[in-house]
Amino acid sequence: MTESWVNSAERVGADLHLELSGSGSRRAALARALRDAVREGRLAPGTRLPPYRSLAADLGVARNTVADAYAELVAEGWLTARQGSGTRVAERARPRAAARVPKKSPGAVAASAHNLRQGRPDASSFPRAAWLASARRALNAAPSEAFGPGDPRGRPELRRALADYLARARGVHTDPEQIVVCSGFAHALRLLYGGKVLRGPLAVESYGLPFHRSLLASASVRTLPLPLDGHGAVLDGLGQVRATRGVLLTPAHQFPTGGPLHPARRAAVVDWARSGDGLVLEDDYDGEFRYDRQPVGALQGLAPDRVLYLGSASKSLSPALRLGWMVLPEHLVDPVLAAKGEREAWASVLDQLTLADFIDRGSYDRHVRRMRQRYRRRRDRLVAMVTERAPHIVPTGIAAGLHAVLRLPAGTERSTVKAASWLGIALDGLAAFRHPRATMPATDGLVVGYATPPDHAYEAALEALRQVLPPPG
Amino acid sequence: MTESWVNSAERVGADLHLELSGSGSRRAALARALRDAVREGRLAPGTRLPPYRSLAADLGVARNTVADAYAELVAEGWLTARQGSGTRVAERARPRAAARVPKKSPGAVAASAHNLRQGRPDASSFPRAAWLASARRALNAAPSEAFGPGDPRGRPELRRALADYLARARGVHTDPEQIVVCSGFAHALRLLYGGKVLRGPLAVESYGLPFHRSLLASASVRTLPLPLDGHGAVLDGLGQVRATRGVLLTPAHQFPTGGPLHPARRAAVVDWARSGDGLVLEDDYDGEFRYDRQPVGALQGLAPDRVLYLGSASKSLSPALRLGWMVLPEHLVDPVLAAKGEREAWASVLDQLTLADFIDRGSYDRHVRRMRQRYRRRRDRLVAMVTERAPHIVPTGIAAGLHAVLRLPAGTERSTVKAASWLGIALDGLAAFRHPRATMPATDGLVVGYATPPDHAYEAALEALRQVLPPPG
Repeated sequence: MTESWVNSAERVGADLHLELSGSGSRRAALARALRDAVREGRLAPGTRLPPYRSLAADLGVARNTVADAYAELVAEGWLTARQGSGTRVAERARPRAAARVPKKSPGAVAASAHNLRQGRPDASSFPRAAWLASARRALNAAPSEAFGPGDPRGRPELRRALADYLARARGVHTDPEQIVVCSGFAHALRLLYGGKVLRGPLAVESYGLPFHRSLLASASVRTLPLPLDGHGAVLDGLGQVRATRGVLLTPAHQFPTGGPLHPARRAAVVDWARSGDGLVLEDDYDGEFRYDRQPVGALQGLAPDRVLYLGSASKSLSPALRLGWMVLPEHLVDPVLAAKGEREAWASVLDQLTLADFIDRGSYDRHVRRMRQRYRRRRDRLVAMVTERAPHIVPTGIAAGLHAVLRLPAGTERSTVKAASWLGIALDGLAAFRHPRATMPATDGLVVGYATPPDHAYEAALEALRQVLPPPG
Repeated sequence: MTESWVNSAERVGADLHLELSGSGSRRAALARALRDAVREGRLAPGTRLPPYRSLAADLGVARNTVADAYAELVAEGWLTARQGSGTRVAERARPRAAARVPKKSPGAVAASAHNLRQGRPDASSFPRAAWLASARRALNAAPSEAFGPGDPRGRPELRRALADYLARARGVHTDPEQIVVCSGFAHALRLLYGGKVLRGPLAVESYGLPFHRSLLASASVRTLPLPLDGHGAVLDGLGQVRATRGVLLTPAHQFPTGGPLHPARRAAVVDWARSGDGLVLEDDYDGEFRYDRQPVGALQGLAPDRVLYLGSASKSLSPALRLGWMVLPEHLVDPVLAAKGEREAWASVLDQLTLADFIDRGSYDRHVRRMRQRYRRRRDRLVAMVTERAPHIVPTGIAAGLHAVLRLPAGTERSTVKAASWLGIALDGLAAFRHPRATMPATDGLVVGYATPPDHAYEAALEALRQVLPPPG
């Protein structure tokens, strides 16, 4: 023996402060300690390790424990064992560079003092207790097969609950067989267009979420902007563009300008779809939240064979659930399932079961009613502030939803959004939602989401907003 | 007044059996009843509806209730209201065809009496009580922002728990900043290749999941099959194909043939990756389940800068969770997040929080230990059956995982799989997993998953399997 393994043993046991700590067996702890020592360069490549019995004696463990730990690290490639030359640190087990310094996520936005961006419900109002009660009932009641690979349609419990709820609350006409669960509206668009169930071009409203347009663009779907007026989308353009077989609308509450689609327009779009094999995608993103008028039911109920209804729990409960649903015309059920694949690959089955119970027990209705009252109060305070402090500015789109549009004097939107940013207010102007090829006249406005701030921060946000509103022109 | 609205009123109230039932207000119930009557053709297009006060009197509701219900249906397009001609059923409100007859999902497989397909854990063993306890703690402890739009990396609680667990149990070297949560292995492949983070071609093992290959093919990624021998994937081919910068391996437990990658091969693949800017995708799909030998740690620990580690809860807990994780080399973190988007669009935040608590409390370890014992017993019974009843057949790949491979006499696989199907046994032969361009010699074998059947059904499944095994050649 030309090398002194005793030195190695001492280094391992003493200098290296080899600690057999942590959970698991002694063997696992030793393997971990050795792995760390190699990884961090404390045991250099080529170093010969002490024989089993020596290290075992040093550490007060069984000889087999050391033998097993060595074997484990040999199997993993950290050590090499050759007859006659003992166990050595493998040559390629190079020490790793220093740990990575945490970086900000590329998507992270600098935190604003006041968040008045549209699109998010009040995160502090998630009904934790009722949700947990439903989770308990749902998990205890679920058949074993629920924990296997999921049906790509979604859990039958949830589809039944949704069919009842959507018929009752939104006037949607469906049965559970035509509902397919997904992760949200964006996932639905990806399935429909990325999965080639539908093909473009697609007529859209001249104002809408840029995220949806870019999602469609990445699936090579051309979008054609329809003008908006006081009655919602102007549908004359549909007939002009012959190739257009689809139109994406927000009939209950135009996003973001805020009005419902006029009854005559509802009739017209259904007529268009029926006469030319067209399809209406109905984005019912916040249909539950209507404050002053009677609710406006879903367009889908008028023509279930021509309207593909899309909803989600993102506004009504929380985007953290990642649950949405498609109500499909019958002829699209099989193509959508073919695009989704043989097994559920996205939506959590446990959350699906919980949501089914949550709806069936009336907790969903109760939560929506509670939030409707809360959001209505916030809306009222926003409108009162504007009416009192800036009467030259007109709040519009205030009958429903989680946001309103403050119409601004012409030419003032850009500077107002910039001023808001300086004051730490996160919000967008109407321009952020305008289709790049829209031809209708642009108007100036702020899209003010009033749902996001927690209650205690809302007054301060309104006061900050007041300060940036432009003076009378 | 030329038309008798009284008749209509009578039809509505009497003949039509208009029932104001169900939950919600009287107005909502009336709107629903009217909508149904129109939809089902009981109120024909053009029919004039009774004035408010008449219907109100008939039904015993307030006049405003009827007015509001009419207004709601006008807004939705079911009815039209014109000055002087009263309220009528809209012309386009055509009755809908009969309800759809439920069809089978296209992906549904005829139920087999005995399910011995690989890839599914025992669904009846989901740890409901421990999971619920974690859900309760996690939901109560979660900050409000957890219910807002999610960080696309995944919840920090889960990434911290995974970093600890993977280091301890799988020898993965990482920190939470390099972990990105996803919906499972398939979602990870979609993000990496569909999202153009990585580009093909990709070397793969000659036997593997066809689903993964077709997923890669749909992202236009060419796969190049590497031969397998007793030491795992033969890596010589990597050097020959110059363009290949990536290789997908199952180092802990080759899928489906069952052996670990030999230490020398582990070393070789790391050397290859380091010398030519290559990347190893490590699919650690069932690394927790090893029965007889010491565990084989992840390859990733050897070269965290060259190995992209992929794991999920699908085998260890349940595919119903739809939770997986990527441990990324540092230079791939930002590209993966860019592909994933600014917000979490897939994975349930509630399940993420619950899994974090489940791991932190030791419940995950306890569950894995319990399942390891259960699966080992099943493995032992399978091996005992084959050894006693069909000693000419060799069970292989039995040291780990949720399945074994029964090597069959040459030329008998196809007929054996067919015989199994006749006897109501769902399982696959090795041929189902073979890469279509594989050049290594094909061998005959059955891939027997022993995790799926519930305990009470397992003996019967083994007995059925015994009956289809081919006799000595």
